[in-house]
Amino acid sequence: MSDNGKNPWIYRSVFIIATVAVFLLGLFLSSILERKSETYSLQMVKPIPDGEARNEVWGANFPREYETYMKTLDTDFASNHGGAKMIDYLEKYPELVVMWAGYGFSKDYNQGRGHAYAIEDIRNTLRTGGNEVSPMPATCWTCKSPDVPRVMEEIGVAEFYEGKWIDKGHDVVNPIGCQDCHDNETMALKISRPALVEAFERQGKDMSQFSRNEMRSLVCAQCHVEYYFKGDGKYLTFPWDKGFSADAMEEYYDEMEFKDWTHKLSKTPMLKAQHPDYELFMTGIHAKRGVSCADCHMPYKTEGGVKFTDHHIQSPLNNIENSCQVCHRENARTLIQDVYDRQDRLEELRRLTEKALAAAHLEAKMAWDNGATEEEMKPVLTLIRHAQWRWDWVAAANGLGFHAPVEALRVIGTSLDKAGKARKEIALILVKLGVDYPVKLPDISTKEKAQAVIGLDMDFLNKDKQDFLKTTAVEWDKKAKERQGTLMEYSK
Amino acid sequence: MSDNGKNPWIYRSVFIIATVAVFLLGLFLSSILERKSETYSLQMVKPIPDGEARNEVWGANFPREYETYMKTLDTDFASNHGGAKMIDYLEKYPELVVMWAGYGFSKDYNQGRGHAYAIEDIRNTLRTGGNEVSPMPATCWTCKSPDVPRVMEEIGVAEFYEGKWIDKGHDVVNPIGCQDCHDNETMALKISRPALVEAFERQGKDMSQFSRNEMRSLVCAQCHVEYYFKGDGKYLTFPWDKGFSADAMEEYYDEMEFKDWTHKLSKTPMLKAQHPDYELFMTGIHAKRGVSCADCHMPYKTEGGVKFTDHHIQSPLNNIENSCQVCHRENARTLIQDVYDRQDRLEELRRLTEKALAAAHLEAKMAWDNGATEEEMKPVLTLIRHAQWRWDWVAAANGLGFHAPVEALRVIGTSLDKAGKARKEIALILVKLGVDYPVKLPDISTKEKAQAVIGLDMDFLNKDKQDFLKTTAVEWDKKAKERQGTLMEYSK
Repeated sequence: MSDNGKNPWIYRSVFIIATVAVFLLGLFLSSILERKSETYSLQMVKPIPDGEARNEVWGANFPREYETYMKTLDTDFASNHGGAKMIDYLEKYPELVVMWAGYGFSKDYNQGRGHAYAIEDIRNTLRTGGNEVSPMPATCWTCKSPDVPRVMEEIGVAEFYEGKWIDKGHDVVNPIGCQDCHDNETMALKISRPALVEAFERQGKDMSQFSRNEMRSLVCAQCHVEYYFKGDGKYLTFPWDKGFSADAMEEYYDEMEFKDWTHKLSKTPMLKAQHPDYELFMTGIHAKRGVSCADCHMPYKTEGGVKFTDHHIQSPLNNIENSCQVCHRENARTLIQDVYDRQDRLEELRRLTEKALAAAHLEAKMAWDNGATEEEMKPVLTLIRHAQWRWDWVAAANGLGFHAPVEALRVIGTSLDKAGKARKEIALILVKLGVDYPVKLPDISTKEKAQAVIGLDMDFLNKDKQDFLKTTAVEWDKKAKERQGTLMEYSK
Repeated sequence: MSDNGKNPWIYRSVFIIATVAVFLLGLFLSSILERKSETYSLQMVKPIPDGEARNEVWGANFPREYETYMKTLDTDFASNHGGAKMIDYLEKYPELVVMWAGYGFSKDYNQGRGHAYAIEDIRNTLRTGGNEVSPMPATCWTCKSPDVPRVMEEIGVAEFYEGKWIDKGHDVVNPIGCQDCHDNETMALKISRPALVEAFERQGKDMSQFSRNEMRSLVCAQCHVEYYFKGDGKYLTFPWDKGFSADAMEEYYDEMEFKDWTHKLSKTPMLKAQHPDYELFMTGIHAKRGVSCADCHMPYKTEGGVKFTDHHIQSPLNNIENSCQVCHRENARTLIQDVYDRQDRLEELRRLTEKALAAAHLEAKMAWDNGATEEEMKPVLTLIRHAQWRWDWVAAANGLGFHAPVEALRVIGTSLDKAGKARKEIALILVKLGVDYPVKLPDISTKEKAQAVIGLDMDFLNKDKQDFLKTTAVEWDKKAKERQGTLMEYSK
């Protein structure tokens, strides 16, 4: 019976030991499962001075973000598009050359690359010209580099936009990076470009009232939007005062009688949509459900227990597991096919529209050549202007319409309708002028043929660009290195 | 120390009592939470004979299914559309009258009502005519009643389709109901109509291989599909041999040079889409994710512990909690708005298309009247045929495009394009014929005006219908009552 007498003590001891063991196990588990938060990294190796544009300097403090950012150099188009090269859109869709006759995009329009290529690519494109001809305003630099806020600070915003693109290249050398979206002390998301702030101010909205989740889209909306260069000072402005939709912006531009250029063939006062990614996205279901740009393009990642934002900004289709599959419990192949299904349907209407618009410009030229009057042509040009604007609002946006497929299809549908109506009116004018219809249109079946049709001197443009790259661009890098001490080479 | 000696017994007793208590609690909970399955109800009050078309006889055994089925009489359009009356589509969109000139739908086209109205509504519509003029074949009865399988069994399928609609009305009196989708002994879902089986057989598919979930859509696909009346025997046939899409069916019809009618104004060999709900649905994301028609239109319901399928077939928007919200964790208002957002965008393009098509028919008539030749008009008529078919493929389907918004917008986009192209060609023909363009089109701004334009004698049609309802329809009910013993009155 003495054993029985000891039992309560045994029970109690087992209980106490078990409790302590479980407590320790909890501590241990908590320790090995700990996800160090992003702010953990704020113990900087070296403080970042205000205005520091060199991404590698920031990178010394934030190696994970920097390493992933540098992967934007590895943009591998092969994974989605069956080839390792940038798509030459003018080669793939030669109608675009005609649609942009008289405008830079008819010279050169390649698929975009990662942010780290921003400086290299804007220097390389034929659109920015060479030493002899420099057609673009300095405003074009605005979205290309974290040097921009510094220069704006130094010389003033309006002054930054003024003058030629070629005059400011020595001051803008680091590709899109850290300082464009982050505060150098707190790392908080911040808006570094005035145009977005000004657009919201005109609507009575205060940027500081936006939530962190909204900011995860708005830092992108500094650049991934529709904008135009206002007045002689080419002041960068967002046409948002009447709303985000294609229709609202069209009305805005019409009211102020704005045009980006006059079409070389049809003489239409044209609008060029930039890349209204944010606006199109905002009309779609992902935006409605509170998804931000970063949720899909910069999803969270964990490395050695540290959770951080993946700065390899890319197509979510290259990273389905961390983007789509966070919410959509379907296999990757199914999800990718779902995206393609939407994009393919949009592409069908988009191609019909491109063919109709190219024909409309060519036929309009024939009408002018055969003596059509301004009065006859005015309604036609309005139709072409609106049709191409709406097409471009969809086509220029990244994601091939996926950011809001239903709205993209609606807008491209109205574009196709207007392009067809324009062609009908031109046909009637041509017949009235005694021209046989259908007219024989020139061969625009390749980029080269189309560029010849619109009278581009490609040899000169290419030579001028090469001269520029060998002289001016080299000079810019030299000056920049002197100014900032080091200059990283991004291209390989 | 004697207390300590008893302790082990106390521990054991507490343990045993607790265990038993928990076990009993489990039994109790299981009992009060039990959901009696649907098969529970298979203990029938009275066996249902093979061929029993009276829904109320089935209803005696399945009161829950029957009661909810009877709610299809209460279709309350007010909830979605701001009015308690069926929408008169010809009144709302008078262009339709012109688009269907020479075809029954130009006489009368109201919003559909619940299944329990099937017999009343097919008798009432002006499309089926009256005593003097009975334009429709008997085939039109096929989807209206569970009497159909019985009559087909009695006289043969081909024989059922043959002859006039007016000749078989006494045999088809019970509205769409139980026997259309269920086996009378096992209550299993079954296909009661030959056209669906035949369509799948031509594709080498065996109906018996479809899963129960697929059957929850396929019983609907017996009727909610595109079909046509083949040959002189008006044999009900689904045009699926090349695929489900608008494009594939268009190719199918073109190859066999099929037409539903010749347009009275434009002389176009027209196609009338019925209601390709199933086909459009199959191209959308819900079908891709394995959702069936019944999942949204007949969701499960629980009453007094019995789980059963809600047979109040209706718009899921009237029943968001049991349809959308089973998967989508958003509030009802948001979900409804999401549906409307898609439908509104489609409506915009659909209305543009309707206006273009009505104008095309009217302008084509002017071309004929002014001496256009068959050769000149042929390409125009092909464009009109295809444009209106594609429009109808989207417009005729229930759900205002929501069953697959992206595909619906693609198809309506190509329709709008073709309608515009047709108008361009007609304009050129008119100008060539010396007619001033734009021509002045007749006023079709109301249903009445449009019906006058296409030369319908509405007074005669209405009178003939009233005569029919007072004589033939009464006679039908009398004969049916004699045959089956009882005849339920559905209308109130």
